[in-house]
Amino acid sequence: MQPAAPTTAQATTRETACATAKPKVGIVGASGYTGEELVRLLARHPFVTLSHAASRSLAGTSLRKAFPQCRETLPPELAFVGADPESLAREDVAFWFLALPHGVAATYARAFVSAGRRVLDLSADFRLGSPALYKEYYEAEHPAPDLLAAAPYVLPELATDDAWKSAPLIACPGCYPTSIQIALTPLLRAGLLKPAPGATVINSYSGVSGAGKKADILYLYCERDESVKAYGIPRHRHLSEIEEQLSAAAGAPVVVQFNPHLAPMKRGISTTITVPARGVSVEQVYRVWEAAYAGKPFVGILPSGTYPETGYVSGTNRADISAVSDPRTGNLVLTSAIDNLMKGAGGQAVQIMNLLADFPETAGLV
Amino acid sequence: MQPAAPTTAQATTRETACATAKPKVGIVGASGYTGEELVRLLARHPFVTLSHAASRSLAGTSLRKAFPQCRETLPPELAFVGADPESLAREDVAFWFLALPHGVAATYARAFVSAGRRVLDLSADFRLGSPALYKEYYEAEHPAPDLLAAAPYVLPELATDDAWKSAPLIACPGCYPTSIQIALTPLLRAGLLKPAPGATVINSYSGVSGAGKKADILYLYCERDESVKAYGIPRHRHLSEIEEQLSAAAGAPVVVQFNPHLAPMKRGISTTITVPARGVSVEQVYRVWEAAYAGKPFVGILPSGTYPETGYVSGTNRADISAVSDPRTGNLVLTSAIDNLMKGAGGQAVQIMNLLADFPETAGLV
Amino acid sequence: MQPAAPTTAQATTRETACATAKPKVGIVGASGYTGEELVRLLARHPFVTLSHAASRSLAGTSLRKAFPQCRETLPPELAFVGADPESLAREDVAFWFLALPHGVAATYARAFVSAGRRVLDLSADFRLGSPALYKEYYEAEHPAPDLLAAAPYVLPELATDDAWKSAPLIACPGCYPTSIQIALTPLLRAGLLKPAPGATVINSYSGVSGAGKKADILYLYCERDESVKAYGIPRHRHLSEIEEQLSAAAGAPVVVQFNPHLAPMKRGISTTITVPARGVSVEQVYRVWEAAYAGKPFVGILPSGTYPETGYVSGTNRADISAVSDPRTGNLVLTSAIDNLMKGAGGQAVQIMNLLADFPETAGLV
Amino acid sequence: MQPAAPTTAQATTRETACATAKPKVGIVGASGYTGEELVRLLARHPFVTLSHAASRSLAGTSLRKAFPQCRETLPPELAFVGADPESLAREDVAFWFLALPHGVAATYARAFVSAGRRVLDLSADFRLGSPALYKEYYEAEHPAPDLLAAAPYVLPELATDDAWKSAPLIACPGCYPTSIQIALTPLLRAGLLKPAPGATVINSYSGVSGAGKKADILYLYCERDESVKAYGIPRHRHLSEIEEQLSAAAGAPVVVQFNPHLAPMKRGISTTITVPARGVSVEQVYRVWEAAYAGKPFVGILPSGTYPETGYVSGTNRADISAVSDPRTGNLVLTSAIDNLMKGAGGQAVQIMNLLADFPETAGLV
Repeated sequence: MQPAAPTTAQATTRETACATAKPKVGIVGASGYTGEELVRLLARHPFVTLSHAASRSLAGTSLRKAFPQCRETLPPELAFVGADPESLAREDVAFWFLALPHGVAATYARAFVSAGRRVLDLSADFRLGSPALYKEYYEAEHPAPDLLAAAPYVLPELATDDAWKSAPLIACPGCYPTSIQIALTPLLRAGLLKPAPGATVINSYSGVSGAGKKADILYLYCERDESVKAYGIPRHRHLSEIEEQLSAAAGAPVVVQFNPHLAPMKRGISTTITVPARGVSVEQVYRVWEAAYAGKPFVGILPSGTYPETGYVSGTNRADISAVSDPRTGNLVLTSAIDNLMKGAGGQAVQIMNLLADFPETAGLV
Repeated sequence: MQPAAPTTAQATTRETACATAKPKVGIVGASGYTGEELVRLLARHPFVTLSHAASRSLAGTSLRKAFPQCRETLPPELAFVGADPESLAREDVAFWFLALPHGVAATYARAFVSAGRRVLDLSADFRLGSPALYKEYYEAEHPAPDLLAAAPYVLPELATDDAWKSAPLIACPGCYPTSIQIALTPLLRAGLLKPAPGATVINSYSGVSGAGKKADILYLYCERDESVKAYGIPRHRHLSEIEEQLSAAAGAPVVVQFNPHLAPMKRGISTTITVPARGVSVEQVYRVWEAAYAGKPFVGILPSGTYPETGYVSGTNRADISAVSDPRTGNLVLTSAIDNLMKGAGGQAVQIMNLLADFPETAGLV
Repeated sequence: MQPAAPTTAQATTRETACATAKPKVGIVGASGYTGEELVRLLARHPFVTLSHAASRSLAGTSLRKAFPQCRETLPPELAFVGADPESLAREDVAFWFLALPHGVAATYARAFVSAGRRVLDLSADFRLGSPALYKEYYEAEHPAPDLLAAAPYVLPELATDDAWKSAPLIACPGCYPTSIQIALTPLLRAGLLKPAPGATVINSYSGVSGAGKKADILYLYCERDESVKAYGIPRHRHLSEIEEQLSAAAGAPVVVQFNPHLAPMKRGISTTITVPARGVSVEQVYRVWEAAYAGKPFVGILPSGTYPETGYVSGTNRADISAVSDPRTGNLVLTSAIDNLMKGAGGQAVQIMNLLADFPETAGLV
Repeated sequence: MQPAAPTTAQATTRETACATAKPKVGIVGASGYTGEELVRLLARHPFVTLSHAASRSLAGTSLRKAFPQCRETLPPELAFVGADPESLAREDVAFWFLALPHGVAATYARAFVSAGRRVLDLSADFRLGSPALYKEYYEAEHPAPDLLAAAPYVLPELATDDAWKSAPLIACPGCYPTSIQIALTPLLRAGLLKPAPGATVINSYSGVSGAGKKADILYLYCERDESVKAYGIPRHRHLSEIEEQLSAAAGAPVVVQFNPHLAPMKRGISTTITVPARGVSVEQVYRVWEAAYAGKPFVGILPSGTYPETGYVSGTNRADISAVSDPRTGNLVLTSAIDNLMKGAGGQAVQIMNLLADFPETAGLV
């Protein structure tokens, strides 16, 4: 009656084997929602050990206390350490995740890279190739222009080669840009779409966690519950990243209308892209997508006429996409859904670490 | 210490005066969310008496039992009556509200109009001027083409004269179309916008009540909570009404991309319209809006750079609108918010009745 | 075809009649959720004019801007005034509503009462008859013990005579206590229940607006969405009010277990009371309730075996109650539902003003 | 710069090792929320292969299509099979999970046990030791009284020995009973509590998924959103299981008041238990709990004065508990939180399988 299962001895051996091989990872800036998600993911990751969480304000506090949702995966003795970049750089940590505001992240990135650590930066500091564009959108001088060359922007499914895997510092994409590029980039690269400036219209609806964990009346439960609103039109900061990446994919400047909104849910981004595409069939779109995403575990291509739902990607690292064409208007309408804290932030950063470290791509993410 | 307040005698006199003057109103089809909203509004309306609610399935049931949210405003003895059109037409009811599926509404409309009653139809049966368009979008012959001429489409703030006030039958606008026309129609009429076919992109996010009160797995709490999804792209039925009305406003065919979505909230529609408008300033937009809506109690024009929130119009009959222009793209982005059950359905129907009956426009709606 | 409706002339006369008779009302402390609800209710009240809203931080700000949900009912010129008690006391305001923290409210109450104004205090300052109990639960000396005698505690449906109508200052009940007393008080007064100390167990679940409009991480959307939690057990401040009132009703000390919780919704309190009642039938309970609440528009008595839902009282001033008895345990289980901002705060205060001013009890509340 | 990580070869070896050892598991009845949760958990479980999902209505349908939230973990070729018990019993499946209505589950249990398979039954069919009690609460003869002796009721943290590990059929506990027993059972076993009949009052608030995935108006988004309600008082079916188990723990009959409620959230149960305990200190409670749950990964004991939140256990297999004592009333108030679909259903069933199969207890559950 006993099934063919590993014996306790086998299980123990396997556990031990993993334990001896596990590199250490650390997080700086774990008090926001992205940091929380990274703690959750790294605490349960089968091939790494979360050894450091650094925070100026929480130094000394137990992680179990700060992250009650992770009580069963966090070791009871693990506590926040202080956030001095130089001290942290001396710790035996293989991968540092930076969940910090832009401007602040660069300081840590520099210290860790100098010390030979590898860094996954989830801020905007290294997402833009152009320091001038950074200044225009973030209203400050770029904090580390000399590091930009060593900091590739990596959306793993869209990387064209493996050169980025040897980079010391990775710029992890933003949440809205991820939801947009997964749908559009392969089509632009294939030359299927050549939209006129301003003719591509992107509406995105984000869960409230996208606004961060700030004690602000605007994000109180009673303010956001049962309410949808637009904001940040027409120049949300993510627009700079979106257009820089789409332009690179198209090989020509791409100018879009980006309309972000807040929706009454914790997590998720639903993006709907309308783009002129007279003469392009929906079959062509699917052929390009299927070629681009063959064997990619974290992209779900849905049949035309069905639509991604944020509820179905919530808690996953997956992006779902689908497309319809409209013969009346000559437009394609592309829809996508991601979890903004997973594929849009912490999950994608862990996916990148998995690829860097030659772990299975889905390790700790399913 | 006693304030200057009406004495009981005065109050009683006033109450009595109202009571003697109150015309009777009735609802057919009160089992859906629009019907519920009409019951709520008419039961508390100061100048009419809700005397009839007709339903095949609920005949004999107490309204208090069927609408527990209205216990204090519904008279205990009021019960559903049967739904035979001819019998109902003989009742002494001044205004009938039809909250019925398309196709069914026309039968009641015909009976009531023949009997000299006035009818506010909230179905799609009389919204389209063209029976051919009706057939194309509703996949059935129009049920009463001979009545179309007597059935004006009335969005009160956009009516150009008072001729509709003598019509026996009013086609009340759909929810999405209302949220769109309030923003676009004045601009099209003023000739400010002349968008190329397909270049106007309209994204709308609706609360779940827009899907009706149907025992369908798709609309269960656990399916819709924490989830946003697109649906019905590219040919939602409301598209026919939207384009017919916008074309009339523009004096030329208008072809738009309409992308409806479901958002995790009970009520509300948030609409965001992107339209090419090179050379049109946001000040011109506001001047046209202010002229169109001067003295209109149910339109809120918000400053450019602020955005309507569905939470702020929930439970009200108001449409809030605002606009920004984007010099990079040459587009205008217009945003609006309404409560789909109020300004998008029952509230607007009561507003129309108020105007028909020479009640104050806001009676029972604030 | 024209229905029997009031002519414009009649309507105008009636409107004018009301306008000439309308006393002015004011609010101090309109930046929280209770204040917002009072603004909403008083701006649409048919028999009073909201003439003053006082706030230290918002002086000069337009009310329309501060309360976008009330755009169509607030006059465009109405702006917040400063909050100096003495200056406010000189204004021609018949009723002042205090939506202020405890301790602060008493200062305004004193100034207004001295100036011969009438005051409805929604804070805890005058809810307790005993200054010692106040000190025990609020950890401060009572701010105005000399005013207590002139400040009756008024839950209108439970007032035993009309003496309170001549009081200059009314203590409006708390939200949890209202949801509890409506169910329990008539049964205690009737001598039906004589629970042993600690044997009455009261669990209440409140919407998040009950926690106030504070920029606190704890009440962010992402913290409260999809989560229920207990808090404040075993000595929530409202316990003092609950026990003082229930003891008065019973004519003997009543000691209860009060377990408050937060539920993921904006509004509403669901209360479930378990009380030993061997030998008391559910019919006896209903007989007492029906006698107590005959002709009371704001109490809904539901059949045994059905249960109040907060969704059905949301936005209303009604309390719904029902009861079952359990022969196995000898207990009665009473359930109630109110909207914490309406019957639990602003709505009940307006109801009290209606009664004081001899307006219809439901004026502005349906 | 490369961290000390397993090489691809190592990872592959480990993956392969696991793959060869993986027993097959199957689910009958995967169309409800418990079935969905089991699919999600078993598809990502590191030590088993989900090989069979049986459903009468869905036979032939792809699991990826039926469970879009699991697209990246479900093999594309896996489809539902028919639900004939005898045919399924012949399949090479080590563990069958039954997510079926009571009455139906017993038929499958019999077939699978006869064929030597092991069965985890999540229905109520084998939860009660007494067929008479089953008949009283489920209003039908027990469908398989002869199997009861071979079907231990297993709440793993409360099992007193390992005898159950050799049973062919396991009765997995209900959701409410789990949330209650984790808090109460150790205290009853220790003799700390000896409550009089009816004096223990248990209020539970469940997420809507607890009501199942039924096309019923009652569970539509618009009916349950923003609303809390009691239901099923005083004799919810789970009461039979609760009292049978608590009585066994106490060694004497325990009679409780059980008040279940629905809360507006997808998942989670928040339980608050008030129990007379004059003379029992909160320290004694914690000592008993700490002894009972030492080394148990899925129980979180929170400090007195803090309270479990369902949001913190959502998506986890953990039960959080805490306690306060009230010297005024002589009562203890115990609070607990679980995810009803995890520790209250699918997660606990997988935990039981892990223990049966000698997998690590947390495998696939963190």
